[in-house]
Amino acid sequence: MINEQEKNAISGQMYNWVKDLFPVCRSLTGPGVRETLSYIQKVVPELGVKAVPSGSLAFDWTVPPEWHIRDAWVEHESGERVIDFADHNLHVLGYSTAFDGTVSLEELQEHLYSIPEQPDAIPYVTSYYKERWGFCLTHEARQRLKPGHYHVHVDSDLTPGVLNYGELVLPGETEEEILLTTYVCHPSMANNELSGPAVLMALIQTLKDMPSRKYTYRLLFLPETIGSIVYLSQHLEHLQQHVKAGFVVTCVGDDLAYSYLPSRKGGTLSDRAAQHVLRFIGSEVTHYTWLDRGSDERQFCAPGVDLPMCAMMRSKYGEYPEYHTSLDNLDFISEAGLYGGYLALRRAIEAIEHNHYPKVTVLCEPQLGKRGLYPTISSKGHADHVRAMMNFISYCDGEMDLIEIAERINEPIWEIIPIMKTLNREGLITY
Amino acid sequence: MINEQEKNAISGQMYNWVKDLFPVCRSLTGPGVRETLSYIQKVVPELGVKAVPSGSLAFDWTVPPEWHIRDAWVEHESGERVIDFADHNLHVLGYSTAFDGTVSLEELQEHLYSIPEQPDAIPYVTSYYKERWGFCLTHEARQRLKPGHYHVHVDSDLTPGVLNYGELVLPGETEEEILLTTYVCHPSMANNELSGPAVLMALIQTLKDMPSRKYTYRLLFLPETIGSIVYLSQHLEHLQQHVKAGFVVTCVGDDLAYSYLPSRKGGTLSDRAAQHVLRFIGSEVTHYTWLDRGSDERQFCAPGVDLPMCAMMRSKYGEYPEYHTSLDNLDFISEAGLYGGYLALRRAIEAIEHNHYPKVTVLCEPQLGKRGLYPTISSKGHADHVRAMMNFISYCDGEMDLIEIAERINEPIWEIIPIMKTLNREGLITY
Amino acid sequence: MINEQEKNAISGQMYNWVKDLFPVCRSLTGPGVRETLSYIQKVVPELGVKAVPSGSLAFDWTVPPEWHIRDAWVEHESGERVIDFADHNLHVLGYSTAFDGTVSLEELQEHLYSIPEQPDAIPYVTSYYKERWGFCLTHEARQRLKPGHYHVHVDSDLTPGVLNYGELVLPGETEEEILLTTYVCHPSMANNELSGPAVLMALIQTLKDMPSRKYTYRLLFLPETIGSIVYLSQHLEHLQQHVKAGFVVTCVGDDLAYSYLPSRKGGTLSDRAAQHVLRFIGSEVTHYTWLDRGSDERQFCAPGVDLPMCAMMRSKYGEYPEYHTSLDNLDFISEAGLYGGYLALRRAIEAIEHNHYPKVTVLCEPQLGKRGLYPTISSKGHADHVRAMMNFISYCDGEMDLIEIAERINEPIWEIIPIMKTLNREGLITY
Repeated sequence: MINEQEKNAISGQMYNWVKDLFPVCRSLTGPGVRETLSYIQKVVPELGVKAVPSGSLAFDWTVPPEWHIRDAWVEHESGERVIDFADHNLHVLGYSTAFDGTVSLEELQEHLYSIPEQPDAIPYVTSYYKERWGFCLTHEARQRLKPGHYHVHVDSDLTPGVLNYGELVLPGETEEEILLTTYVCHPSMANNELSGPAVLMALIQTLKDMPSRKYTYRLLFLPETIGSIVYLSQHLEHLQQHVKAGFVVTCVGDDLAYSYLPSRKGGTLSDRAAQHVLRFIGSEVTHYTWLDRGSDERQFCAPGVDLPMCAMMRSKYGEYPEYHTSLDNLDFISEAGLYGGYLALRRAIEAIEHNHYPKVTVLCEPQLGKRGLYPTISSKGHADHVRAMMNFISYCDGEMDLIEIAERINEPIWEIIPIMKTLNREGLITY
Repeated sequence: MINEQEKNAISGQMYNWVKDLFPVCRSLTGPGVRETLSYIQKVVPELGVKAVPSGSLAFDWTVPPEWHIRDAWVEHESGERVIDFADHNLHVLGYSTAFDGTVSLEELQEHLYSIPEQPDAIPYVTSYYKERWGFCLTHEARQRLKPGHYHVHVDSDLTPGVLNYGELVLPGETEEEILLTTYVCHPSMANNELSGPAVLMALIQTLKDMPSRKYTYRLLFLPETIGSIVYLSQHLEHLQQHVKAGFVVTCVGDDLAYSYLPSRKGGTLSDRAAQHVLRFIGSEVTHYTWLDRGSDERQFCAPGVDLPMCAMMRSKYGEYPEYHTSLDNLDFISEAGLYGGYLALRRAIEAIEHNHYPKVTVLCEPQLGKRGLYPTISSKGHADHVRAMMNFISYCDGEMDLIEIAERINEPIWEIIPIMKTLNREGLITY
Repeated sequence: MINEQEKNAISGQMYNWVKDLFPVCRSLTGPGVRETLSYIQKVVPELGVKAVPSGSLAFDWTVPPEWHIRDAWVEHESGERVIDFADHNLHVLGYSTAFDGTVSLEELQEHLYSIPEQPDAIPYVTSYYKERWGFCLTHEARQRLKPGHYHVHVDSDLTPGVLNYGELVLPGETEEEILLTTYVCHPSMANNELSGPAVLMALIQTLKDMPSRKYTYRLLFLPETIGSIVYLSQHLEHLQQHVKAGFVVTCVGDDLAYSYLPSRKGGTLSDRAAQHVLRFIGSEVTHYTWLDRGSDERQFCAPGVDLPMCAMMRSKYGEYPEYHTSLDNLDFISEAGLYGGYLALRRAIEAIEHNHYPKVTVLCEPQLGKRGLYPTISSKGHADHVRAMMNFISYCDGEMDLIEIAERINEPIWEIIPIMKTLNREGLITY
């Protein structure tokens, strides 16, 4: 059980981590990722930071060059600076090439990105695999641009370097693994970026505090898509042999919704734990399908990879208007939102850790009264917790795992785990 | 087919049996059970009455001592007798220990049981496995109790004796068994007690009148819970090897509803027969789940026991307000109610007896016209019974049993059985 | 892709074939069937016309004698001719025996067939397997019949002859077969008769024009029921070994509805293709069940025959009021209706021809950008066709066939086939 104090401590910590990391200009590669991983290492000193050289092959892909962005602005011929990277990381197209020159407004327009339907949002746009330069701005600002010529300045370079990622393995009693991944490649966005690392950092602390862990935990902070592909290309065999369940940790920061995105074929241990936990954790849950996917499950569940990974989210990427804009900021998320995302994942991990096949040791119903577990008066109606216990026992046939039983008896697994332990101590249940 | 005269005779007989047995003060053990079994023996002379000594072990349970209740009352210091066992069997807490003494109203209250929400009902309360004394009364009467002292008198004892039950085996053509059980342990209640024995007695008469029986029938009149556990502890291996289907016969006396309670995992032959019969027998049927269980299916379907037993009821225990009170009386049930309970079980038995895998002997549709089974004129629309016959034949592939076919063609199995026999005589169907 | 010109040509041709064949007086046997098959041979010269002698045994059936109808009328004693076969083929009961004599109106009534609920419709009635004479007429005409005597004249005979049917086998790359059947035994009805042969003739032209055919196609024009039974009795073993899918082509001429009738047990390749195509082809589709069957699936799917055959129809026989009456005429069907019936079957055939198990050749998602198949800018929202392609690839695990993938990604298979071919050319998909 988690007390209010522990809850508040975890919530506040997570929000602060997000706040600290928000200003960093992350991208697939480069100093922003390294700065982020360094920060995480202060909290999780065991985290290893790995580097894969630009140009390395990974399945169908090639690790791109490192991007360094130093400065970028657009000035009207009148001297007015109309766009400035110094104001917001999102103003520069991700992986924008260097440029310095004067262009007409018409020419400039071809390099600008804005969203007419969200006139106050700076969109997040990238061009990782085709070289071009560009700026992103609010549609309001774009409409204010005056005719004339503009001095455009992008001080950046794309040079051979490395792709970095963070990795931590927490050993458990068995070599079977639970895999938790998140991404560290988006500049200055809160729900669809920093909520993931913050929740994963808090989960790592929780895992380290657990008195025992059945599973070994593999925890990854990756640049999305290319980072996952690179990691899979180097660890596929090991992962396929050891990973029993896993979650892509993404969009776990706001308090507006819960969302579930299944693995490619569904029905894995992860899917079952996620669906069970979300059924009981909160109010409404939106169940998406594989067709709605968009994060690293695309790689982890790809044909022939097929790791048992799904996602438990708050507001899902692509589904909330603030997604991939400057409006996905520190106001969009909250301590309560982060805690809800953390709790769902923690409950799912607990479910998997305790997912035994309990078996009752006596035939027919046990006589619980003589053990003080049953009311001695039989009248109309039993207490609910007695009913839950009797229902639980009635399914302990050694053929159903705890998640299935909890589903059948309509009780959250975290309320059944203590009952299972009590009955085990009484010698009535083995597992 | 059952004619009106036969129907009336069966209905009237069942109601009379209930009426005769209503005043007997049954409990788990003791003279009330013996008197009840003796009465049943008058109708079913072959019934064996068995005895298991108090203290015998049965799985996790111990057979309790016999309870003898002779007299019990509560008198106000004014001399007014406010509760008297002589007025109603339910007034004494089941298994109440002996007591004689004077207590204040406050002390007395701790030994009283009533239902504020049903002020005119005496509740049925027992304390089988913890020794205490007590009285049950209407909430109205309780509220009329005056201050002062009361003389309490309970003349009872709990002494080593036996647990009794009734057993009858009607041999069939095979050693495969159908098991029907009911209970004989509740004092003076009609639907949730005597409807069961009455319907089972009528079914025994019907089974004895059948020209042939494929199955051997095992018919048990048991004290609920402990009786079933004792019986299972002594016969489990035999039952698991032989029982192909079975029903817990309970709550089959009122005319307000039909109810179905499945076996633990569902899908047994009994479940399939019950669901099919109830689909066609009447108006609305309430389908309960294993979580709603409450009678001896708790033991017969326990993990590791797992006999194929379910229940077809009228108003289900725990679901009607009169349940386990003095209001579950001779007015709550009716001849029509009992007959409906009887008929559902009889139809289910017929379904199981005839549940062959019919197979058509010709390829393509048979030419029914030359056998006088099909209209010789082909115009728009066929008679419904021809349609039913053609539908039946179209599924006679030797892979589906009759219950499945009847379900698929949306016809009650008792209308398909004669068609199957006709087509078998014509050489078109084998089974 | 089918252009508008091709569509119009096919539609017009089909309607003209129906118009030409409408006046022919078909029955199970006799000159009407032969005239119809001769007409089809003009369009499909390769069609073989087969003959099976009257009296031949076929499973439970016997081939009936040939019916020749030359003239038939009823004259009132006043000299007024009140019914005349020359006016409409439906006026004579199918397989009516010869008769010449004078009968009272009362006697005549026993030989008349009309539909009170459809007073302006001449019903279609037959008596293939019991000898009788009779006339069919509108209920309006029947009510106008005056008292008195009538001269009845039926010039017909039932003599040993043959049962004819048409058969064509179009070889493909494999010996695995797709079976398409229709019937040629109803006089002067459009949707429930001639739409079938017309659509099948158009499909034969399409099949002959296909650059390659994986499957061998077996195309049958049969008298309903007895024709199918005779054919099955002579070819059952071959068909069971070779037929992988098939369709009964019936009621494919009107533009009011789409209907699906499954095979006996459902789930065959034909059923899956039909359900997929109908899901995407049009507006509403009525899904019937096996209990609604009425055409030759009764034989092709009979127990022990069990060929994988189902039906994709427009308005289903038995379900539209004009069925089996003179109102099922050239006005009831239309070019658009026939084309819709043709297109559904053509799409199903294409689905089956291309129903591969595609498998992606790279692990993780392929890098489509470098192949020009993916936008190089990543912003909010992708084009729908890119999404469809990514969804398709995500299911190419070599374990799902194309129909299943198309169902899962909610795209019509005819839009996925070109994507599959493109990705195959790029080396990203094998099958």
